Amino acid sequence: MIVAMKADATPDEIQAVVDRITSFNLKALNMPGGERTAIGIASAIPPDLRETLAELLGAMPGVDRVTHVSRAYKLASREFHPADTVITVKGVSIGANEVVVAAGPCAIEGREQLFEAAKAVKEHGAKILRGGAFKPRTNPYSFQGLGIEGLKLLKEAGEQFDLVTVTEIIDQHDLDTVAAHADILQVGARNMQNYPLLTALGKATQPVVLKRGISATIDEWLLAAEYILAQGNESVILCERGVHPLDREHTRYTLDLSAVPVVKTLSHLPVIVDPSHACGNWRYVASMSKAAIAAGADGLLMEVHPDPPRALCDGSQSLRIETFASLMKELRAVASAVGRSLV
Amino acid sequence: MIVAMKADATPDEIQAVVDRITSFNLKALNMPGGERTAIGIASAIPPDLRETLAELLGAMPGVDRVTHVSRAYKLASREFHPADTVITVKGVSIGANEVVVAAGPCAIEGREQLFEAAKAVKEHGAKILRGGAFKPRTNPYSFQGLGIEGLKLLKEAGEQFDLVTVTEIIDQHDLDTVAAHADILQVGARNMQNYPLLTALGKATQPVVLKRGISATIDEWLLAAEYILAQGNESVILCERGVHPLDREHTRYTLDLSAVPVVKTLSHLPVIVDPSHACGNWRYVASMSKAAIAAGADGLLMEVHPDPPRALCDGSQSLRIETFASLMKELRAVASAVGRSLV
Amino acid sequence: MIVAMKADATPDEIQAVVDRITSFNLKALNMPGGERTAIGIASAIPPDLRETLAELLGAMPGVDRVTHVSRAYKLASREFHPADTVITVKGVSIGANEVVVAAGPCAIEGREQLFEAAKAVKEHGAKILRGGAFKPRTNPYSFQGLGIEGLKLLKEAGEQFDLVTVTEIIDQHDLDTVAAHADILQVGARNMQNYPLLTALGKATQPVVLKRGISATIDEWLLAAEYILAQGNESVILCERGVHPLDREHTRYTLDLSAVPVVKTLSHLPVIVDPSHACGNWRYVASMSKAAIAAGADGLLMEVHPDPPRALCDGSQSLRIETFASLMKELRAVASAVGRSLV
Amino acid sequence: MIVAMKADATPDEIQAVVDRITSFNLKALNMPGGERTAIGIASAIPPDLRETLAELLGAMPGVDRVTHVSRAYKLASREFHPADTVITVKGVSIGANEVVVAAGPCAIEGREQLFEAAKAVKEHGAKILRGGAFKPRTNPYSFQGLGIEGLKLLKEAGEQFDLVTVTEIIDQHDLDTVAAHADILQVGARNMQNYPLLTALGKATQPVVLKRGISATIDEWLLAAEYILAQGNESVILCERGVHPLDREHTRYTLDLSAVPVVKTLSHLPVIVDPSHACGNWRYVASMSKAAIAAGADGLLMEVHPDPPRALCDGSQSLRIETFASLMKELRAVASAVGRSLV
Repeated sequence: MIVAMKADATPDEIQAVVDRITSFNLKALNMPGGERTAIGIASAIPPDLRETLAELLGAMPGVDRVTHVSRAYKLASREFHPADTVITVKGVSIGANEVVVAAGPCAIEGREQLFEAAKAVKEHGAKILRGGAFKPRTNPYSFQGLGIEGLKLLKEAGEQFDLVTVTEIIDQHDLDTVAAHADILQVGARNMQNYPLLTALGKATQPVVLKRGISATIDEWLLAAEYILAQGNESVILCERGVHPLDREHTRYTLDLSAVPVVKTLSHLPVIVDPSHACGNWRYVASMSKAAIAAGADGLLMEVHPDPPRALCDGSQSLRIETFASLMKELRAVASAVGRSLV
Repeated sequence: MIVAMKADATPDEIQAVVDRITSFNLKALNMPGGERTAIGIASAIPPDLRETLAELLGAMPGVDRVTHVSRAYKLASREFHPADTVITVKGVSIGANEVVVAAGPCAIEGREQLFEAAKAVKEHGAKILRGGAFKPRTNPYSFQGLGIEGLKLLKEAGEQFDLVTVTEIIDQHDLDTVAAHADILQVGARNMQNYPLLTALGKATQPVVLKRGISATIDEWLLAAEYILAQGNESVILCERGVHPLDREHTRYTLDLSAVPVVKTLSHLPVIVDPSHACGNWRYVASMSKAAIAAGADGLLMEVHPDPPRALCDGSQSLRIETFASLMKELRAVASAVGRSLV
Repeated sequence: MIVAMKADATPDEIQAVVDRITSFNLKALNMPGGERTAIGIASAIPPDLRETLAELLGAMPGVDRVTHVSRAYKLASREFHPADTVITVKGVSIGANEVVVAAGPCAIEGREQLFEAAKAVKEHGAKILRGGAFKPRTNPYSFQGLGIEGLKLLKEAGEQFDLVTVTEIIDQHDLDTVAAHADILQVGARNMQNYPLLTALGKATQPVVLKRGISATIDEWLLAAEYILAQGNESVILCERGVHPLDREHTRYTLDLSAVPVVKTLSHLPVIVDPSHACGNWRYVASMSKAAIAAGADGLLMEVHPDPPRALCDGSQSLRIETFASLMKELRAVASAVGRSLV
Repeated sequence: MIVAMKADATPDEIQAVVDRITSFNLKALNMPGGERTAIGIASAIPPDLRETLAELLGAMPGVDRVTHVSRAYKLASREFHPADTVITVKGVSIGANEVVVAAGPCAIEGREQLFEAAKAVKEHGAKILRGGAFKPRTNPYSFQGLGIEGLKLLKEAGEQFDLVTVTEIIDQHDLDTVAAHADILQVGARNMQNYPLLTALGKATQPVVLKRGISATIDEWLLAAEYILAQGNESVILCERGVHPLDREHTRYTLDLSAVPVVKTLSHLPVIVDPSHACGNWRYVASMSKAAIAAGADGLLMEVHPDPPRALCDGSQSLRIETFASLMKELRAVASAVGRSLV
């Protein structure tokens, strides 16, 4: 941690900062510069003291600003865990050389819809079936999902078509129920900082897909992962799904694909991309799926629906089955071009 | 709802959109323009169909874009509820002529700290005591609050100093406990779209302070209020607390004070402002508090701590008691200048 | 400048950074921390080396990131110029105790419109007449201003009604012409980083109103002021006019009023606020004007039009004369409440 | 254009809007809805009336909001110009099947640096040499480019290595000089809304690379292109280079790759991508270059420097020559995977 003093800070103000740091049994290093003095903390700061110390030093007279040198996340950091994390569920590995595609409807609407989608995505190469049973919707009057009935259908479809399943959980008290029906649990963007939920998932045995909040910085996203990791669950899959857009005229969010190489550099966790929610428009999903793989993503999470114009949720961004089928061929070519496989 | 067709849409594409609208027993109105055709829906669209219909029409061939004419929120809208909502708790009214100040520490750290703060804020004119028992923290290693012990202290302090109390709830399953100890329940910015929590609060009897999410549009915020109102709880107090900033170099968030007159125009609900979290720096809190009242806010939510440099949370943005005392005098002058009282 | 090394940086990588710093005749200070090493530069870095050095150190192996401790702007900084700058033009002082209002039409449309506006704003207490002759418009087909004819009208109106005048300049090669007709020159938000224009204005003798770019950070804004100051023109008035909004549904931009106390802390330059462009809707202008003064602004820049529904530019955000008149009374009360005068 | 009235608008207010529209010889179409009335304009609105009319209707009593149905840009729109525009300069075509790479140093620093870079980028497959002579810099004390000396070197290097050249122009009065030395003229992000510059370039005979402003919406960007096209210059190449980021901790901007398919849908103009400025860090440039091509970009604009740690500008984001050479091989594979060539 570096405390930059104001250019006109007095010697007493500087000494007070040094004394405050020393009072925590930390070593303060005075660094006079050309124009102002900076004070560094030259010892390891206990994690639970990090933010508090920055805040209290920042409020002291004569202090211009406080900058962290270390990173707040440890378990998620590649610095302390250099090897890539590979997560394997029922034989499907995420984070290895093979690019993995999860596909299916936004919301589970019924047996016919789900099973038709499941059959198709399996046939064209998806390894994971996605489908929402509990749908968080901005508008309280919109369709909110089938709930437990949806979960049962998902489990059955996964078994019938030999697909790993993933579904969203929005309430930590549903954990046992959801975990009994799905292989992978997903935290949506709106819940990225729902700490009771993250903490509960940290105690689960299933892998967790953690979507990035729409205004979350990379560090806030990795700290949300840290919540899960800190409870003992080491299987976190990060999912970029678009950040707050400049305008919503043409896409719903701005897919931040540079997050893929950035997170790959900072962390050992697998990173997948959801182009459907980011674009909000099926016309752009194919381009962004190819771009995601080219950028280094470990997988994709896509919305596929047998009949998008009749979908109860996100019809505008869902791919038809035939579009999905031809896209998968293109994705294989792109994966191969960047040295990855996609079966 | 208006469906703008592409300039080169074919007559068949236009007819298909008209037919689709008609299939829902809605009336479609064809409106040829100078350059393209627009199709309006000239009947009331059921609330649960609104988003779904927009999505499915948006996915049809030849469609350029779909625009809503009506607003998705009804219960929160001033159009259908012209009179201001005034919420009264233990004799304190929020949303009436008097500007109401809620003040206290970010986190309850112990009896001495809380009671010293409570005594002081009461003495200088605050009507509501704020204090966090469950603290959502970005960093999992930071202090997370005293929990139930904190709630008990809050209740006791409220009673001793005759202050209404407000505290944050982060898990709907804590509702009974939190509601038993506090007069007003607060939803933090990170939970603005935590729908299970909003739904539970909609069934509560206490008023709810609903903070705006840091990247929530005004409409998304009012829809979050709609979740609570739709369950029957009519006492929602909106709280602006800063939106995603251009940079975090000088303030933590950007306080969007124009939200105050905008929300006052769109909705009948009271609006208060939290300058402490928005600024993240006590040096700017006084200016922004005065500005909030001048902009028309019904109240303020401020952090006051007897000893900010020793605070376990948000020390950098908390006001000292003497600063709070002198600020209250200035706030009275500003309130009076805009025709409001502040006792 | 602080160079934070990666946690796994090698001694050779650390030494290479030290050597690189030393090669510029700067003193490097090694600061081992609990988890990684930071290297500080403990001497004054020449201004022209600042960014280059940060970039080249940032690109070296083993470097995690580079943070500036000093600020890039010097002439604009209060640290090196503690007293408030007060700019006086024809007897009107900006930056002193009195709050100054500049008002008038967005675009000068003709003699009658301008003179009617000038007469009215003078009568109700404005000291400065604003009016655009060269209008930068997003849409190339929109009205672009009257040009030189507009300037002549502005000069005449200023003289007739004894008002200081301000108008926008969009091309440095118009400087002589614009300067011959107006007392204060304005740089619009779109041109905040038009460096040839800023450099030319740095050599002008008139004061310059420098609007903040819609996505400019505070530091970028102060650096734009530095461009002008560095050429010798010490009379720069900063103008906050709204930053990129979360959505454009209700306001055109988000007025960042916290910029007022932040800039007042960082710089000695006067700060005014343009609520009209920020809101884009006259309904919110009164609230935000009062808030701006309460926040500490030294003045306001407002659009007033004798007949807004017939305005050729920004009719939706212009105040009618009677609205302006009653607002001025309210502004006087708010100014007085915060210890300022408004004649 | 659609005018949505408030739900409680009176018949007189509705009629006044209809009358106002009719007064411009436009046809108003009344469309009663379930909850409010909308009024459509069912005739072609003259381009110079578009914004003015929207503003004045928006300011009328009883009006809730005004929405455009048509798009403001015409010449840039694919609706009126379905075929892709292909721009050919000295035998190099941009916008055709072949992906074109422009590479070179951020700033021209001297003969040796530029010629070394030119030789290398030519050898590895770039068709265009980039190099800045006039550098717009946020900090007034940073290196601002070699000016005319730089232009001469660029021209000479282009001739010697048979490369098309591109350089930035920041002042319309430099047009003749810059145009005499470079084949393609570039407008930087800061100047995207510098209308005198755009207008001047509209009269030039060279193609123009128009970078997207960092907070420009897609529509604002296309309107900036419209400024150039409206003057008769049909050769505009759009360049995505990153938009305002959520934080600047890891990348300088957020590369908005979804802009590529969006613009390809809306417009017939070629689109290229500058991953160097967006990332601000060479480590992420390779990933984002591959992603850009996979997303459908017609070309790349990249910074390559023979010795990045000694660069006077943007050293942190420039690729070394050997990195560029190996990247070009990967780019060929990706281009081929998406059905494009890259020679």
